[in-house]
Amino acid sequence: MASSSSSASVEAQVEAVRSIKASPGASQFEMDMAVESPKGLKLEVAARQAEVNRKEDGATSELINDALRQAVVNILERRLFIIPSFKIYRGVAGLYDYGPPGCAVKSNVLTLWRQHFVMEENMLEVDCPCITPEVVLKASGHVDKFTDLMVNDEKTGTCYRADHLLKDYCKEKLEKDLTLTPAKVAELKHVIAILDDLSAEELGAKLKEYGITAPDTKNPLSDPYPFNLMFRTSIGPTGLSTGFMRPETAQGIFVNFKDLYYYNGNKLPFAAAQIGQAFRNEISPRQGLLRVREFTLAEIEHFVDPDDKSHPKFANVAELEFFMFPREDQLAGKSARKICLREAVSKGIVNNETLGYFIGRVFRFLARLGIDEDRLRFRQHLPNEMAHYAADCWDAEIESSFGWIECVGIADRSAYDLRGHTDKSGVPLVAHEKFSEPREVEKLVITPSKKDLGLAFEGNQKMVVGALEAMSEKEALEMKATLESKGEAEFLVCTLGKTVVITKNMVSIRMEKKKEHQRVFTPSVIEPSFGIGRIIYCLYEHSFHRRPCKSKDEQLNVFRFPPVVAPIKCTVFPLIKNPEFDDVARSIAETLTKAGISNIIDITGTSIGKRYARTDEIGVPFAVTVDSTTSVTIRERDSRQQIRVNIKEVVSVVKELIEGQSTWTALVRAYTQT
Amino acid sequence: MASSSSSASVEAQVEAVRSIKASPGASQFEMDMAVESPKGLKLEVAARQAEVNRKEDGATSELINDALRQAVVNILERRLFIIPSFKIYRGVAGLYDYGPPGCAVKSNVLTLWRQHFVMEENMLEVDCPCITPEVVLKASGHVDKFTDLMVNDEKTGTCYRADHLLKDYCKEKLEKDLTLTPAKVAELKHVIAILDDLSAEELGAKLKEYGITAPDTKNPLSDPYPFNLMFRTSIGPTGLSTGFMRPETAQGIFVNFKDLYYYNGNKLPFAAAQIGQAFRNEISPRQGLLRVREFTLAEIEHFVDPDDKSHPKFANVAELEFFMFPREDQLAGKSARKICLREAVSKGIVNNETLGYFIGRVFRFLARLGIDEDRLRFRQHLPNEMAHYAADCWDAEIESSFGWIECVGIADRSAYDLRGHTDKSGVPLVAHEKFSEPREVEKLVITPSKKDLGLAFEGNQKMVVGALEAMSEKEALEMKATLESKGEAEFLVCTLGKTVVITKNMVSIRMEKKKEHQRVFTPSVIEPSFGIGRIIYCLYEHSFHRRPCKSKDEQLNVFRFPPVVAPIKCTVFPLIKNPEFDDVARSIAETLTKAGISNIIDITGTSIGKRYARTDEIGVPFAVTVDSTTSVTIRERDSRQQIRVNIKEVVSVVKELIEGQSTWTALVRAYTQT
Repeated sequence: MASSSSSASVEAQVEAVRSIKASPGASQFEMDMAVESPKGLKLEVAARQAEVNRKEDGATSELINDALRQAVVNILERRLFIIPSFKIYRGVAGLYDYGPPGCAVKSNVLTLWRQHFVMEENMLEVDCPCITPEVVLKASGHVDKFTDLMVNDEKTGTCYRADHLLKDYCKEKLEKDLTLTPAKVAELKHVIAILDDLSAEELGAKLKEYGITAPDTKNPLSDPYPFNLMFRTSIGPTGLSTGFMRPETAQGIFVNFKDLYYYNGNKLPFAAAQIGQAFRNEISPRQGLLRVREFTLAEIEHFVDPDDKSHPKFANVAELEFFMFPREDQLAGKSARKICLREAVSKGIVNNETLGYFIGRVFRFLARLGIDEDRLRFRQHLPNEMAHYAADCWDAEIESSFGWIECVGIADRSAYDLRGHTDKSGVPLVAHEKFSEPREVEKLVITPSKKDLGLAFEGNQKMVVGALEAMSEKEALEMKATLESKGEAEFLVCTLGKTVVITKNMVSIRMEKKKEHQRVFTPSVIEPSFGIGRIIYCLYEHSFHRRPCKSKDEQLNVFRFPPVVAPIKCTVFPLIKNPEFDDVARSIAETLTKAGISNIIDITGTSIGKRYARTDEIGVPFAVTVDSTTSVTIRERDSRQQIRVNIKEVVSVVKELIEGQSTWTALVRAYTQT
Repeated sequence: MASSSSSASVEAQVEAVRSIKASPGASQFEMDMAVESPKGLKLEVAARQAEVNRKEDGATSELINDALRQAVVNILERRLFIIPSFKIYRGVAGLYDYGPPGCAVKSNVLTLWRQHFVMEENMLEVDCPCITPEVVLKASGHVDKFTDLMVNDEKTGTCYRADHLLKDYCKEKLEKDLTLTPAKVAELKHVIAILDDLSAEELGAKLKEYGITAPDTKNPLSDPYPFNLMFRTSIGPTGLSTGFMRPETAQGIFVNFKDLYYYNGNKLPFAAAQIGQAFRNEISPRQGLLRVREFTLAEIEHFVDPDDKSHPKFANVAELEFFMFPREDQLAGKSARKICLREAVSKGIVNNETLGYFIGRVFRFLARLGIDEDRLRFRQHLPNEMAHYAADCWDAEIESSFGWIECVGIADRSAYDLRGHTDKSGVPLVAHEKFSEPREVEKLVITPSKKDLGLAFEGNQKMVVGALEAMSEKEALEMKATLESKGEAEFLVCTLGKTVVITKNMVSIRMEKKKEHQRVFTPSVIEPSFGIGRIIYCLYEHSFHRRPCKSKDEQLNVFRFPPVVAPIKCTVFPLIKNPEFDDVARSIAETLTKAGISNIIDITGTSIGKRYARTDEIGVPFAVTVDSTTSVTIRERDSRQQIRVNIKEVVSVVKELIEGQSTWTALVRAYTQT
């Protein structure tokens, strides 16, 4: 499907999928990739893409994935990148600690994020509490809608995620039941594909139809019901003031819009940013580090005039080319393909320049971190995935052993959030555009005649007046037409709960010309939202490498972190046990520390090969080996090349490498020439 | 009182105070400063010290404090250093946001903390969740003891902190009631002094005695009862698993002791560190930014052999001299005085070298941040302030308009925390010291004779055996003596709830010589714990300065932040409106950004004086003014001196200043010479 195809045709396709979904028993057989549901498509295409990208032959991808994951997680736990939280008390599902090297990686990723976004884009960073009063999350919709469907074991009360049970049932059937008819196979695949779109009733019906029971006891299950994923607590001692642990950091920015707009000189566009903890009380966390109950988010809210979403710095990223997966391609069963960002915006694949700019900046950020560009794609949300208010939405998805993982969401959320808080708080969260000279505009004026209304409705007069004044422009113009043609009109007064008859004398409705000096509007919000823990986990997998070892059958583990991410930047080893070398090593380590370069010194006298292997495994990029009192060697982790450097220069050379002022290749050239 | 006075005499004094407290009606008249309670002493001495340190004359200190606080908080709110959280919904007491400059200050303080402690001391940094399961906080004592005493309005249910009501009553009486007898004055002062030490019953009795009612309604009050200050929530969907938002970050480190010890090569000493949010559900937060419900802590747990608390780097801090306030001096009614750290440790004022080392390092950290050394003191806890298990405890207190504020606590907590988690989890959190050669030790061996015990106690045999084996060394040796002299001994078996008679044949108790290869012990913990928000608030007050302005009656506000703390490091101003200057300014700003130096560019053409004033108010230390296309001036905020620098050098000069590689004074000398 050409990228110029209109979004109307996309929606038609989605509609076709929806109608099939509505009658799942009907035409299972005719279903094929082209009319498979969007979610299904997403999965199938992802799997294919993964196979294309994969270099290894022979073994099936699942086995490779399991082995890769096991190897990576094994090092992560053994070297304390991660620790299951409260392990001595048998832990809590979905909670993990960052141990020392993991904590350093996280801190490095966040520092780079601040430099790349907050500093380079002049964003206004804020830091708001995790504890959030109910009214804020009522306005944002989280109190009512931030739910997953849950079922209980009717005898023991044990809780399960309803969609998980249905998915597990379908998957197991598909894998193990060899007697399935082709129609049944298609049906089960279809159910997996549409899982996320099912209502509580639909899910309940499917569970009953398939006779699914509680996995542990085989007891019957309750009907599915929504479970709110926020951690609830109580603020203050009375127990009367409900609060929640924030499920995202964004709301803290929205409620501060007015102050931040003022801080920015009452000018648009501007962006605010926040890094902080967020909390989701998952019913049953799965997928290890990827679905957890507490995690670090880094979020940006870029406020922009809805009538002008151009971006002055778009040219800086326009020539970037990377894997994109527009919705047309997904629906047409195609794969993600490399698209130039300029083309994506000019052809309307990406809704606007500002959204495009952030997609480009996110790509650059992930590449700087060391995410493999061939296992990174930007996937556009399909219409049924997007919130009704969103103008466009793209996820940066990174391929891992768990499949394609949504790590950054980049959404044009229009005016939804600011409007919600304006309505709930009564504080207008709006921007002003001053006109250079006043403009004449037509405005609707509704003037109820209180006298006539009083005579007709007596005590109810106030309610009728209020309802008349609150009419929308459309309603008012319709009433005006009816009054002019018929002399009276029926009118529903919600506050009275009944319809009354309004006559011509009771209200005057007319358009008036007015001079306006400024335009008042609710800004649109473009929101790039980063799941820091997920990015870090994918980074671990992408950086992981196994290096053949001299002793065959053995392999050495290496994390090929770029210097900016590496938890420890440099090691210092005396080549052999020698007090003089030890002193030199100590003095170099001290100077590195003073220069802010994290380092470890190992004077244990273990063989140099073993010391390299130990530090390669946690991804230390550079090793200084002291074998004289005047010069030392610096070894680079991936090439394993060495250069010889004077002791006086060593710290400045390492600093240049770490801060990216020079590259290893350039240094090797320089130092082998001399 | 000389610092060599034994702690026994201190305890005697505290005991004296306690006995007076027990009979408050008795000898109010004889009470004077020397026998005033420790808490009272603390307050009085603090007030006197403040007066000594204060430079201004005339106005009373309270007025000065109020004016200072108002001026500082005014700028903090106007320039968005802080924002009351959820302001558009009228906020939540005790919750504050950091706005853009505040957020930058916080991030700078934490970066310096990481460099000063984690990097320079090779600490193991971890990052654990805020959500903590109940069992962990049960083991730490928080579930049972982390409480404040609360009373309710008996008709409306409104909650109050009991001690606040009593304190407010006493203060108001003392200020406004001119008819008070000297005895009554002494009594009320005494009550304020001992407030923190009162039990629920004692507090309740005082409230009744003084006829204190609910402040808003004058309704009667309930008896005081403990209210737990932790935010409670529920982990997972069942509602059966209670969790709390952590009240401190330390527990996350303690539960990981075993892994961290292993990570450190099973060697002591080592320190772990954590920065993160902590939560306390205050009954009624007061004191603005100093007592909040969510805050950032930075905590260090230094694990050390209890038999060897020396520190290899103590010499690095030993010569430091700063205000210390040992408990002897507090009890003797003296003021804090400058003491050399070496002397404090050698004379035993500070319990051990490691504690002394951390006190020195904390002093250096606060000084690097810009805390005024004359308004900083290290106050030792009095015996009644310390937990029973603590070996010694010092608070870094910073003087602010609210008085002396505890900002860092540095405690030797002995083995309390690790033992608590060992007992509760069953996982031994211990360290091992391998002996170079095995040592012979005497060990107690208790061997019950099951046959004889079975004959005597039949079904109860098991319980008696268990109780015998569980005897402490002391109990066992006593029984051995009794059995040898009398042939039988009475013995309480708790599990049976009764005393039985044990005869000689039923148990053999003897000392045996054994060879041991290692010593197994629970490490001591030395814990420096930093309240980051409090430190930052005090820093604001200490950095605040009013500069006389040309137009008299007006003063300019300046935050004299050191460059390392300043939220924005540099401004770039074209001197006059001129496109060429604008281009130069933009290019300098871009280069600063790339070098990681936060900056703002102001090309509005406002008068240069106004632009300086605006940025002085948020503490920007350096301003680059573009008045030519070849060279620019750099202006320093506090001296308001300027130097002229070539455009090509400007960024490297600013970078050197920011990173502390050169000082302004040195630069002025260098640039005025050439």
